[in-house]
Amino acid sequence: MSRLGGLLGREPVVVAVGAPAPAEALEQRAVAVLRVRWRPPPAAAVEALNAVLGDPRHAQADATAAERLLAARPHLVDVRPAGQALGLEPDVLLHAGPPLEWERAAGPMRGALIGAVLLEGLASSPEEAERALACGAVRLEPCHRRAAVAPMAGVISASMWVLVVEDAAERPPRRACCPLLEGPGEALRHGAYGPQVIGRLRWMGAVLGPVLRRALRRHGPVDLVALAAQALQMGDELHARTRAATLLLLGELAADIAAAGAPPPDLAAVLRFLSGNDHFFLGAAMAAAKVSADAARGVPGSGAVVAMACNGTDFGVQLSGTGDRWFTGPAGPREAASGIGDSAIMETVGLGAFAPAARRMRQITLAEHPVFRVPPSPAGTATGIDVTRVVRTGILPVIGTARPGAAPFEPPPQVFADALRALARQVR
Amino acid sequence: MSRLGGLLGREPVVVAVGAPAPAEALEQRAVAVLRVRWRPPPAAAVEALNAVLGDPRHAQADATAAERLLAARPHLVDVRPAGQALGLEPDVLLHAGPPLEWERAAGPMRGALIGAVLLEGLASSPEEAERALACGAVRLEPCHRRAAVAPMAGVISASMWVLVVEDAAERPPRRACCPLLEGPGEALRHGAYGPQVIGRLRWMGAVLGPVLRRALRRHGPVDLVALAAQALQMGDELHARTRAATLLLLGELAADIAAAGAPPPDLAAVLRFLSGNDHFFLGAAMAAAKVSADAARGVPGSGAVVAMACNGTDFGVQLSGTGDRWFTGPAGPREAASGIGDSAIMETVGLGAFAPAARRMRQITLAEHPVFRVPPSPAGTATGIDVTRVVRTGILPVIGTARPGAAPFEPPPQVFADALRALARQVR
Repeated sequence: MSRLGGLLGREPVVVAVGAPAPAEALEQRAVAVLRVRWRPPPAAAVEALNAVLGDPRHAQADATAAERLLAARPHLVDVRPAGQALGLEPDVLLHAGPPLEWERAAGPMRGALIGAVLLEGLASSPEEAERALACGAVRLEPCHRRAAVAPMAGVISASMWVLVVEDAAERPPRRACCPLLEGPGEALRHGAYGPQVIGRLRWMGAVLGPVLRRALRRHGPVDLVALAAQALQMGDELHARTRAATLLLLGELAADIAAAGAPPPDLAAVLRFLSGNDHFFLGAAMAAAKVSADAARGVPGSGAVVAMACNGTDFGVQLSGTGDRWFTGPAGPREAASGIGDSAIMETVGLGAFAPAARRMRQITLAEHPVFRVPPSPAGTATGIDVTRVVRTGILPVIGTARPGAAPFEPPPQVFADALRALARQVR
Repeated sequence: MSRLGGLLGREPVVVAVGAPAPAEALEQRAVAVLRVRWRPPPAAAVEALNAVLGDPRHAQADATAAERLLAARPHLVDVRPAGQALGLEPDVLLHAGPPLEWERAAGPMRGALIGAVLLEGLASSPEEAERALACGAVRLEPCHRRAAVAPMAGVISASMWVLVVEDAAERPPRRACCPLLEGPGEALRHGAYGPQVIGRLRWMGAVLGPVLRRALRRHGPVDLVALAAQALQMGDELHARTRAATLLLLGELAADIAAAGAPPPDLAAVLRFLSGNDHFFLGAAMAAAKVSADAARGVPGSGAVVAMACNGTDFGVQLSGTGDRWFTGPAGPREAASGIGDSAIMETVGLGAFAPAARRMRQITLAEHPVFRVPPSPAGTATGIDVTRVVRTGILPVIGTARPGAAPFEPPPQVFADALRALARQVR
């Protein structure tokens, strides 16, 4: 073989890039053309891309962020009231997505905030609750700021019980929390705050949480990576579908729930709640995703996306290399967007809507997950969204919802461009 | 288009059947050849095939048998001691497969029979049990004769608890039973009869059975077709893999188990047994398969296979059109064959090892199941084995075991030829 690797001895091949006309003309003459999908980078982003990709720290920074994300080994370790688990003050409410003021909150978010104020006894009527929220007597903070995530409206108040997940790969263990999922029907996470909704939340605090806590103490930490990997093999994608994972968790805990010392009617109610709530595992999955994404935070120069979330008004992202700053854009039509919440943390770590779209998403991600696979593909799920690839290709992360069959959420492209520019400004 | 359907206007195509030489010669001359896999019927079977296929009742008989098999809607309705559910006398033991005498029983079958005699208190030592079995003081009968099936050695005695399955499609409902599966480790079904094995069987009769019975009474009948169809979507094939189905059943029953009024330690033990016993659902699946296959029995002229089973010494089949007669052949090497039992009833109805092999098995079956599908195939599972197709093609039904990864059992071909000849002799 010649030094050209036999290049001149082979049939020539035409490779076409860009405008289709020349390739079409050749193809009409029966010349085989290999078309390469390539687009020039968006003109407005060239400068920022050059700065970030030219940053000598960049490649290693992204590799480090991806490595930490993939190394996480989240375990479900406890179930506690948010006040204890998150140090949440009684007059603070957490909410999904980037920071939000009451004035800008959409309907479902307002409903959930009002419900939480009523649940905490901070007001005795919805009107009084609205006033407390409007005047700042009750303060708002994003869940993400307290190492927490929550689905839909994503409101957490001090007396709500949360699943506590720890990453066993870090010493001391990193921790993240997500509330116990309310189950089907009217729910605070959709903005409802009627007596049934508040009543169920009180039962969850009085019965479900304590029983699960005692069961988990008896059982010991639950390895959520093992459980999630198994569930992916059983048809879950762990955002819209968590039925297999919920059943696997029920199987893990059922005997210890029965032995937790609660009265039989309470035991039956807890088991009925878990087996009738296909989404229950989503809380554990989201906390596991949060603790994994948080492991990738704070690597200077890295454009790895470590959070995507929506508060019903704004959609926002955070990057590993830009600290706690949110880059935000409109969440889209108010009613539709209210379904997003923090659960896009599942796509942030390559699960949920990313799972069936792994091949396309692999074009904007840093790595394949070493454990998570979605049959029949032998490849790992596409993990670690790279803001430079998103801006460079124009391929947006696909974001699902917890409602099977619902249209995926399309994030506003400009938030990724803004995040990239902020990262570029940090290049020395 | 001409009356020949455009045949003469198209490029001619060569279709090759039989010996490969002519097709190869044409292919070497770049002539496209459509090769049809066809073999002449085995000479010894031509007469019987002609008789059965020429029987004017045959096509309709097979259609009727397949229709009844596919129409079955088995529900889990009760859990009871075999003595009550099957009218089983205290001195009768049921066993897997076709009829068997003690003298011809293989090691694992002997062990299981001895264990059952000890469990029933019919003997006080293994030696005494052997004598009782050898002299006929304890009588043997196939499970199939009592509308029952059981895995592996498949021994059922009066005090063992069985799952009772009814076919809601028939009035009065047809019924079939299968024992509660013992769980992992040493077990009677493998021929072990040590104190731990007998102790677990006693616990199953004293605690597990009664708790499940009360739970099922509270819950009402469990639709096993719905549950099995869901489990197939979650990766089970319902013979080697029943984990998803077991979890789905646990999810269905957990709350009613907790409410069944048993002491908490018993509840915890029952839930731990169920969640730690991936094969538990196999008992329900086998009884459901039995009640479905039995629906196809007794259609004069039909060559549909309604039972395949192995007693560790003989493998046997029964046909719809030949009554209760077994057609038997050697089960193969003694130790290997002892793993077969009645669980080939799963393949008899097109599940188990048939599920992943549906395309090949479709060549020897009468129908596609209208509900059962194995992703990613959009086709129904291949259901209703047709003895004429088995003999005609030489393709044998593939039979799995409850041990994942174990080699499938190869049934002796001659039993199908024998069964076909018996069916031929019934043609008027």
